[in-house]
Amino acid sequence: MIENIEKLRDSRWFSNLTTIIIIVYASILGFKTLGDMSSTYSALWHIIDYAVNLYFIFEIAIKMIAEKKTLNFFKSKWNVFDFIIVVITLLPLESSGYAAVARLMRVFKILRLFTARPELKAILDMLIKAIPAIIDIVILMFIIFYIYAIIGSFVFVDLPSGLWKDFLVSMLTLFRILTFEDWTDVMYEAMEVHPWSWIYFISFIIIAAFVFFNLFVAVIIGEMQKLQEKEMKDEMHEDHNKLDLVLQEVISLRAEIKELKENKKEQG
Amino acid sequence: MIENIEKLRDSRWFSNLTTIIIIVYASILGFKTLGDMSSTYSALWHIIDYAVNLYFIFEIAIKMIAEKKTLNFFKSKWNVFDFIIVVITLLPLESSGYAAVARLMRVFKILRLFTARPELKAILDMLIKAIPAIIDIVILMFIIFYIYAIIGSFVFVDLPSGLWKDFLVSMLTLFRILTFEDWTDVMYEAMEVHPWSWIYFISFIIIAAFVFFNLFVAVIIGEMQKLQEKEMKDEMHEDHNKLDLVLQEVISLRAEIKELKENKKEQG
Amino acid sequence: MIENIEKLRDSRWFSNLTTIIIIVYASILGFKTLGDMSSTYSALWHIIDYAVNLYFIFEIAIKMIAEKKTLNFFKSKWNVFDFIIVVITLLPLESSGYAAVARLMRVFKILRLFTARPELKAILDMLIKAIPAIIDIVILMFIIFYIYAIIGSFVFVDLPSGLWKDFLVSMLTLFRILTFEDWTDVMYEAMEVHPWSWIYFISFIIIAAFVFFNLFVAVIIGEMQKLQEKEMKDEMHEDHNKLDLVLQEVISLRAEIKELKENKKEQG
Amino acid sequence: MIENIEKLRDSRWFSNLTTIIIIVYASILGFKTLGDMSSTYSALWHIIDYAVNLYFIFEIAIKMIAEKKTLNFFKSKWNVFDFIIVVITLLPLESSGYAAVARLMRVFKILRLFTARPELKAILDMLIKAIPAIIDIVILMFIIFYIYAIIGSFVFVDLPSGLWKDFLVSMLTLFRILTFEDWTDVMYEAMEVHPWSWIYFISFIIIAAFVFFNLFVAVIIGEMQKLQEKEMKDEMHEDHNKLDLVLQEVISLRAEIKELKENKKEQG
Repeated sequence: MIENIEKLRDSRWFSNLTTIIIIVYASILGFKTLGDMSSTYSALWHIIDYAVNLYFIFEIAIKMIAEKKTLNFFKSKWNVFDFIIVVITLLPLESSGYAAVARLMRVFKILRLFTARPELKAILDMLIKAIPAIIDIVILMFIIFYIYAIIGSFVFVDLPSGLWKDFLVSMLTLFRILTFEDWTDVMYEAMEVHPWSWIYFISFIIIAAFVFFNLFVAVIIGEMQKLQEKEMKDEMHEDHNKLDLVLQEVISLRAEIKELKENKKEQG
Repeated sequence: MIENIEKLRDSRWFSNLTTIIIIVYASILGFKTLGDMSSTYSALWHIIDYAVNLYFIFEIAIKMIAEKKTLNFFKSKWNVFDFIIVVITLLPLESSGYAAVARLMRVFKILRLFTARPELKAILDMLIKAIPAIIDIVILMFIIFYIYAIIGSFVFVDLPSGLWKDFLVSMLTLFRILTFEDWTDVMYEAMEVHPWSWIYFISFIIIAAFVFFNLFVAVIIGEMQKLQEKEMKDEMHEDHNKLDLVLQEVISLRAEIKELKENKKEQG
Repeated sequence: MIENIEKLRDSRWFSNLTTIIIIVYASILGFKTLGDMSSTYSALWHIIDYAVNLYFIFEIAIKMIAEKKTLNFFKSKWNVFDFIIVVITLLPLESSGYAAVARLMRVFKILRLFTARPELKAILDMLIKAIPAIIDIVILMFIIFYIYAIIGSFVFVDLPSGLWKDFLVSMLTLFRILTFEDWTDVMYEAMEVHPWSWIYFISFIIIAAFVFFNLFVAVIIGEMQKLQEKEMKDEMHEDHNKLDLVLQEVISLRAEIKELKENKKEQG
Repeated sequence: MIENIEKLRDSRWFSNLTTIIIIVYASILGFKTLGDMSSTYSALWHIIDYAVNLYFIFEIAIKMIAEKKTLNFFKSKWNVFDFIIVVITLLPLESSGYAAVARLMRVFKILRLFTARPELKAILDMLIKAIPAIIDIVILMFIIFYIYAIIGSFVFVDLPSGLWKDFLVSMLTLFRILTFEDWTDVMYEAMEVHPWSWIYFISFIIIAAFVFFNLFVAVIIGEMQKLQEKEMKDEMHEDHNKLDLVLQEVISLRAEIKELKENKKEQG
């Protein structure tokens, strides 16, 4: 019987059903915010919410039973992620005073879409793996931001727009400049008081863009290197082995010829 | 005679003629909207429109006759595409009440430019093939948009700009933020009511940009992998075969030497 | 003596001198527009302008004399480019009524910087070579622009901003949307009259961005393929030749062994 | 004892300690600008500042003593960088009249974060190495900017916004256009006086974007080429050597067979 449950868990239509249920639920949740539907369909909505909760419990149960030992279920980080979401959405917050929080909790159910499709799990794993490769660049960007924020919040602190009124706001303003979002408005305001401050803005944009440009190239080249090493090693290993075989054959051939010659000499 | 028609269909100048006719027609159609030309040249325009329709029928006829069986014509999806466009543009909508619709229908004729040049057909095929490679990323982006839209339409619903008034409008606002289009205006408005809402905007931009960045790298690396596999297999296959030949030669050589030695022993 | 002139033409310091003279001239020309310097230093400026003209004639003369046949000079397209610029800048327009045109002509002298540095010539050659690779994409972008411009200038023609008043202006507005420049202002205006027009804008941005994204990937992969083919062929050719040599050696070895065996049989 | 100091210098926890001290110091320095903290915690802040100065002197001393010859310390450009920063931050500017300058000097201490982590040193080295690869493109961009700035400051000089009032301001305006920052505002203003000036703006954007696009592709391909050459040479060298070995073996084998045959003939 456990085998049947295992089959059910691994079957394509089961994950598809979960995906569809979550998407339908998400759509209803999305459109509920459109206009005054919420009051009219309130009872229906509660039934749907309840049914989805039941389905989620059922699905988690299937996944737990399918494991030989129930605790193995928690060995996969994606299962733990699923379990926490289901537990959170089951908390009886709505009946208590925290109705607003409860409503936001429903959004968490959508997060289960990440784990419903194996392809999305793979992409997420890939994205998580990509983080360490850029962590040093993040630190570098932080240093650049920090230095410019300190200078900015020191020199431009009295500008009427208040975009440099303290350190944190200056950081935010620099992030805005990095996205090119109305950065000239910020610059022209600064240039009215300090005419040479365009050097500050242009240098920041060029340095930050240069770092990002190199980050991009470095990541592509790094990924390519990994790929090439794996690829070439696989392909070339075969050739290596064959070459070794040929070499070995030729060497033993030579040894035999030598033997043959010595025999002849002895005969001679 | 069918061979002559086949030659005509495959000839470079025939596809060039079609291309030029469409471009000239498109230019006239474009400039007709400039000022009051439309009334003066109305009669001339009708003649041109009629002539282009005739040419299109003629061209489709050539392509149909060139096939051994007329139904083979419909086996190519590009031919079906051409056929549908010609049929649509022939519908006598103008004489009926739908004059406005009829005028828009003319735009469809320009779509035939896609099929007039073989190079453009190839690019379009490539673009269509590229879609599945990014479909999971599109789903991932949708989840990110969805979660942020739900949170945004919940927290910022009462902002006077109405940019978060319901779920769909919030989605549109998030798309706008992704293009960095005046996103700070949206943020500063939100920060007046919820001072910490900058976390919402900055996190959305960083997460969405990070996903796109990785999508880009993944697509380039994926394409490269395909290319490399094909490339290397072609090149290395030749080497493999030659190595196999050498190995075989050496092995049979050794066998012969062995035979020679045994003969000698027997002689001895 | 011609050899000395040839050496002079090819010497590093001669191209460096030309580069420095053009940059100094360009800087003076740039700063002349700053404030009222122009009137005070007018006489000095005329002398500099005259000296640079003389230097350019001298340099062109050197390049012409260095060739064995003077007409060979015109075989290089860069030399023709240099020659035309020098001739244009020598036209006595200033003394005639076209003083404004004459002043703009001076800008053309800066174009000689392209040909003064061999590295820049190489980059320009590379850029010119890159054009055909993207010509079909340009046509594709034009079709997309065309269709959207026709639809836009048809549906949005009466909007008060006049951004869709005719075909050409619509094309310009679409280019603006592609650069994400205040595209939401355009969309929000359209949405007031046609609430569903966001589909028009979002679809245009997604389609155009998708085409550009694929163009980018295609160009990188295409360049890589060229590189790899050249690279691998060079490297592998050597291996191929060596393998062929080994194979040949082994085959003739086998033939000799065969001969040896037959000799023995005959002896036997 | 010098060995212990050398161990201390190279130990992971020592560089981590330095990193943490700089980050904590940077955070305090950052938050000091938030509100009126500065007056209340002024005494505490002076102690922290003093302590960090002491730690920096201690760390530099360790690094100097760890070298066999103290002067070797200055052979690494990163050490010289560290030394200059420590010396600058020790200058007794605060007690003199330059209090404002002294406060800005503190920001320089953060720069030591670059040298505290070996990974960041490596990234910075990579970034510095990447500069020459794009220097010619920078010159090319400068020429494009120069020509457009000259034309712009000549044609649009009288526009009321003053965005083209002189050469330098025109350069700044062109940089703004390159970042797509409200470039249509600049264009629409110019088009009111010169209706065809959209050609100036569109051509500038397309040319500059095209150059950047090719720069990007060229850098990726260039890096890839370097990588591939290194990679393939390493891998293939081994194969080359083995093939040479096989070839040598086969040739000497053939020589021996020849000898064998000649012996036989002699015997015969």
